[in-house]
Amino acid sequence: MPDQILQPAALPATTPRIAVAGVSGYAGAELARLLLGHPRLSAESVLFLGRADGPDNQTLDDLHPQLSHLTPVSPRVVPFSWQALADFGATLLFLATPHEQSREWVPTALARGLRVVDLSGAWRLQDDSNRAVYKLTDADPATADAIQRSAVYGSPELHGSSIRTAALVANPGCYATSVLLALAPLVTAGLVDLDHGVVADAKSGVSGAGKAATAKTHFMYAADNLSAYAVFGHRHTGELLEQLHLPADALQFTPHLLPIPRGILSTVYLRLREPSSPAAIEAIFRSFYSASPMVRVRPAGHLPQIQHVVRTSFGDLGVELGPDGRRLVIVSCLDNLLKGAAGQAVQNMNLMLGWAETEGLR
Amino acid sequence: MPDQILQPAALPATTPRIAVAGVSGYAGAELARLLLGHPRLSAESVLFLGRADGPDNQTLDDLHPQLSHLTPVSPRVVPFSWQALADFGATLLFLATPHEQSREWVPTALARGLRVVDLSGAWRLQDDSNRAVYKLTDADPATADAIQRSAVYGSPELHGSSIRTAALVANPGCYATSVLLALAPLVTAGLVDLDHGVVADAKSGVSGAGKAATAKTHFMYAADNLSAYAVFGHRHTGELLEQLHLPADALQFTPHLLPIPRGILSTVYLRLREPSSPAAIEAIFRSFYSASPMVRVRPAGHLPQIQHVVRTSFGDLGVELGPDGRRLVIVSCLDNLLKGAAGQAVQNMNLMLGWAETEGLR
Amino acid sequence: MPDQILQPAALPATTPRIAVAGVSGYAGAELARLLLGHPRLSAESVLFLGRADGPDNQTLDDLHPQLSHLTPVSPRVVPFSWQALADFGATLLFLATPHEQSREWVPTALARGLRVVDLSGAWRLQDDSNRAVYKLTDADPATADAIQRSAVYGSPELHGSSIRTAALVANPGCYATSVLLALAPLVTAGLVDLDHGVVADAKSGVSGAGKAATAKTHFMYAADNLSAYAVFGHRHTGELLEQLHLPADALQFTPHLLPIPRGILSTVYLRLREPSSPAAIEAIFRSFYSASPMVRVRPAGHLPQIQHVVRTSFGDLGVELGPDGRRLVIVSCLDNLLKGAAGQAVQNMNLMLGWAETEGLR
Amino acid sequence: MPDQILQPAALPATTPRIAVAGVSGYAGAELARLLLGHPRLSAESVLFLGRADGPDNQTLDDLHPQLSHLTPVSPRVVPFSWQALADFGATLLFLATPHEQSREWVPTALARGLRVVDLSGAWRLQDDSNRAVYKLTDADPATADAIQRSAVYGSPELHGSSIRTAALVANPGCYATSVLLALAPLVTAGLVDLDHGVVADAKSGVSGAGKAATAKTHFMYAADNLSAYAVFGHRHTGELLEQLHLPADALQFTPHLLPIPRGILSTVYLRLREPSSPAAIEAIFRSFYSASPMVRVRPAGHLPQIQHVVRTSFGDLGVELGPDGRRLVIVSCLDNLLKGAAGQAVQNMNLMLGWAETEGLR
Repeated sequence: MPDQILQPAALPATTPRIAVAGVSGYAGAELARLLLGHPRLSAESVLFLGRADGPDNQTLDDLHPQLSHLTPVSPRVVPFSWQALADFGATLLFLATPHEQSREWVPTALARGLRVVDLSGAWRLQDDSNRAVYKLTDADPATADAIQRSAVYGSPELHGSSIRTAALVANPGCYATSVLLALAPLVTAGLVDLDHGVVADAKSGVSGAGKAATAKTHFMYAADNLSAYAVFGHRHTGELLEQLHLPADALQFTPHLLPIPRGILSTVYLRLREPSSPAAIEAIFRSFYSASPMVRVRPAGHLPQIQHVVRTSFGDLGVELGPDGRRLVIVSCLDNLLKGAAGQAVQNMNLMLGWAETEGLR
Repeated sequence: MPDQILQPAALPATTPRIAVAGVSGYAGAELARLLLGHPRLSAESVLFLGRADGPDNQTLDDLHPQLSHLTPVSPRVVPFSWQALADFGATLLFLATPHEQSREWVPTALARGLRVVDLSGAWRLQDDSNRAVYKLTDADPATADAIQRSAVYGSPELHGSSIRTAALVANPGCYATSVLLALAPLVTAGLVDLDHGVVADAKSGVSGAGKAATAKTHFMYAADNLSAYAVFGHRHTGELLEQLHLPADALQFTPHLLPIPRGILSTVYLRLREPSSPAAIEAIFRSFYSASPMVRVRPAGHLPQIQHVVRTSFGDLGVELGPDGRRLVIVSCLDNLLKGAAGQAVQNMNLMLGWAETEGLR
Repeated sequence: MPDQILQPAALPATTPRIAVAGVSGYAGAELARLLLGHPRLSAESVLFLGRADGPDNQTLDDLHPQLSHLTPVSPRVVPFSWQALADFGATLLFLATPHEQSREWVPTALARGLRVVDLSGAWRLQDDSNRAVYKLTDADPATADAIQRSAVYGSPELHGSSIRTAALVANPGCYATSVLLALAPLVTAGLVDLDHGVVADAKSGVSGAGKAATAKTHFMYAADNLSAYAVFGHRHTGELLEQLHLPADALQFTPHLLPIPRGILSTVYLRLREPSSPAAIEAIFRSFYSASPMVRVRPAGHLPQIQHVVRTSFGDLGVELGPDGRRLVIVSCLDNLLKGAAGQAVQNMNLMLGWAETEGLR
Repeated sequence: MPDQILQPAALPATTPRIAVAGVSGYAGAELARLLLGHPRLSAESVLFLGRADGPDNQTLDDLHPQLSHLTPVSPRVVPFSWQALADFGATLLFLATPHEQSREWVPTALARGLRVVDLSGAWRLQDDSNRAVYKLTDADPATADAIQRSAVYGSPELHGSSIRTAALVANPGCYATSVLLALAPLVTAGLVDLDHGVVADAKSGVSGAGKAATAKTHFMYAADNLSAYAVFGHRHTGELLEQLHLPADALQFTPHLLPIPRGILSTVYLRLREPSSPAAIEAIFRSFYSASPMVRVRPAGHLPQIQHVVRTSFGDLGVELGPDGRRLVIVSCLDNLLKGAAGQAVQNMNLMLGWAETEGLR
């Protein structure tokens, strides 16, 4: 079995070799599913890595029985090591690891010539004060600072061309993606009355809370319930402020825990600087996303719902304008594990490797 | 069986006789449950009325098997008629009927000397333009206008003393109650920056959509989903504007359909006119509701959740103040069928009959 | 606060003093709710005990916010100690504790003159081989054996008169109660073809798996799922074999985990020794439970459902006989936390204290 | 738009032309999803048909927004007519229609040279008494009888070679598939003690009840609930009796309604004629399904769960043998809309067209 995995020669010279660290979690499972179904990749061109101290004889099926139909023989999950990555000849590394782990590993990965898509929050934020929420420490602060400045925020809709050539892509947070897609068209066009303030009321399924069994992920806590949390100062707020160049008090972002497995719906409330019409607003959204195949602007009168996007890598947007022509409500839906994590990560990989943005995602 | 029901003489002279029309729906079921368990009432002092053209031999158990433990013999549900009400000697009538029905029946009920608690939207709104959403028609517009002006909006926390003597109490809408409890303390004190606008993002369980089997109440539509609807102009908006004396553009109220049976959580966003402190805000809330036993202000750091209020008649409130001392988020939770309907209706009955507000509700 | 709790003199001489150990779990919460609402008890006559090493300043509201409406001031939860029980003057002790704990504490409790209702599996089984599944150890095996022989299996429908005078009542398991209620009428009458075998296919909500956050109680595992477990040899099987005097291979009991918070539905399949009629079978059930107010036999054609019993202490039964007059299907529903735990425990307390069986349960 | 659809010449001569009638339901939606993603087909080679009296300008996206990502332009749904089928040049017709409709249309379809996969129950049963549950009527009984005798029951695992050449394939019922996969290996080998009887306790998600909004598909009925129904005489029983050649009283099949969108888990209880070992039983299952790529036998100790099969076209089986070596419990899981309907239908199409059984299904 290891022999099969470690024979790079069996692949065409042009096939990239992709590694996934942290495959045991929910985002890792979705990455595995997408990569194994990707038309440019095969089971031989992907290496799955578990914990460094994990068992040596695990397969993907052991971790995620629901993936067992994807390949005739379930791929092996090898303990993480730099040697395993080198032996495999990995050229691109996905990190679906906790942010402390990602912060530690990325300098080594880059030094070894790997390109990295990091799904954690470790490298998303440029501003020290925003980054403080992650309580990161660096063995070599100067190198970490340089890496941080070179990191590209992995929103294909905003930074597609930088992503193509990036060594390190910091994949956006799930909530941040949802709200960013809603706000980017109007905020970047300067059409939003920022003095009035923007409210983003976001609701996420339980998979967003991770695989750890905790009091909050217990079925009895989450089912038949709804709760708000991190009302002020959720970690994803900083991403939104940086990407949209907003002052801190212009955006009120509050998340809620929904009693469903997956999906995010964000309802975003704002006031336009000048009155507008529904057609004009829709046109701005369509224009802004005209080159963005993974974002769908719903026609007027058809708001997106979580069911429309779950198990897809799309972000769906719908807009309603109030009778005064100024109050605007934007509804943004995505699957937190796909467009909010693994799907967007694969979209970034596609860009980095010069492939069509949508490969393996439709 | 009819004999048992129709012998007023068997009751003490002082026991009021209560009738419930529209007992087949969800609010009707909760009314039945509360009234049968009310310490001041007995199965003999409550008359349950079904549709005027309904069967003659129905019992409450036939309509609501989950209520069958409340009484040794399941109470009869008689077809609605004024004669049945007269024979029973009813003095107070709950209408858990569609608003068209309530609009038609209330003038007759009042003319016959009945006091009425109407759970529909028929009589809640004084302003014609707000009321237009219900498309009401009146056989005798002049009488209807007079009744409308005399109707008391049934929020015990806001209008307790008027409710005590009212002939007609218009029981508030479920969403309206939820948002009203959140906003009343600060808006009535003039502390809210209304130019900035208030956002009320509300989420309700499926029972709020009623018992009719429709595409939207189908399990496959509601489960594992979340959707926004009536983004602008939901019927309950008018209640909020009238009760809080707000201009229409000062309040953005948007409801969502949650994949749970019951419960509403409203997240309300506003800005204070002047900076304040968490302790000062909590004190305002505690003071405002100091005489309101069915409203609970949660201590700082403990936001309410839907699970805390479901199957109770309480409204729970929690508040978080932003680091700027001005941005405020209020979370308001209640059970849409209890504090949002039947529980509040019984609370109003208690006031009308001179009983303690909480009787039968704790 | 302690003073209030520890003044026995404030109560009428005739009021028993009840203590609950293990109030932090789901069954403990339901016990608290039932006892605080019991017409024979008051907040002063119940002592709530947490872990022996737990904090000294906890209230019931801290553990179970959803119970905060039951009393004006939330009752204190004191760390478990024999001294606290003595100071309080406890006469009856509920143990809602793990079976190891119950096995250890019961000898001491009985020696101190307390009567005990134990909700764990520690004392339910007389047969050593059945009890082996609990891996119990005893400091004083001889005393433990004597206690075991004196313990009464707490099924009020089967052992009501023994329960009245028992020192130790072993409250039945939730699954066992559900299947026992279904099988007792026909098995004890000798009408079941035991050679043919009985199948009990049981399905339980997640609260049955306890409050510990585990991989199996994670929302992502339980939601949108169904799984069978302990297909052969579930712990509750022994209770059924002993209570029904069945040989091991005559009963196939298999539980499943349902994606709902609470409730058990057991579908029981058997063959009658002789052909019978639906009316005759229904008559046997009605006769068997004629003196059992907490068991409801549904009329022919009306099978019970989980929604009919959730949040009640009833066990509901429905029967369908096949066209051959011999194949019989019995559907048995109850709330695993009430008739399957706390409700049945209170029913046992009522019997032990000479009160009506249904007090505080309807 | 119609022009695009109706140009058969644009396709290679070898591409079959597939039509789907009844695309508005849940099974129709899954058929559309599978066919649009099928490697042998394209959007141009599939025709979607709605109701004969339906609108002329509908697209698949209008009916099923969650499918909108499958094609750049949403396929048109044309009203059903024989002319539309002829213009399109259809060679194979899926009927995802009510059984009355299927019974009426199949004779015409066959007379016009179409091959048919019918997903309804109209043509599954050879025995008149079994078929009586469908209350079918035929315009031309003699022709219908002849067609009935030629119909192949569409279980690829049992009748693969007959399906390859069949004109009419009667796609099995969802419950029947689930139980059949569990029982076929041992029953056909004559290893089951039929005197003892077989119990199949099946549980299905709500999509099995269809898209019509009814009291039973209302979220408030299905959520947080479980109910048994059709305890004796469910329509799918006849399929099992015929396919397994069982006498009616040897099989007790009872379905239940689960509070989840999709998935069936059947727990099947039987007794072996002779004692066996777990390894021997597993070997029988593996051997029986060795040429059946869409059935997965789980390794010992790993029972299937609904989550493992949902959104796949696999049937998963797991077996546990009792300590006596004779009592056997088989757990069978599938997605009722896929292996229980559309997935199995596509599997049958693959066989009929000489393609690999798994194409478009893995």
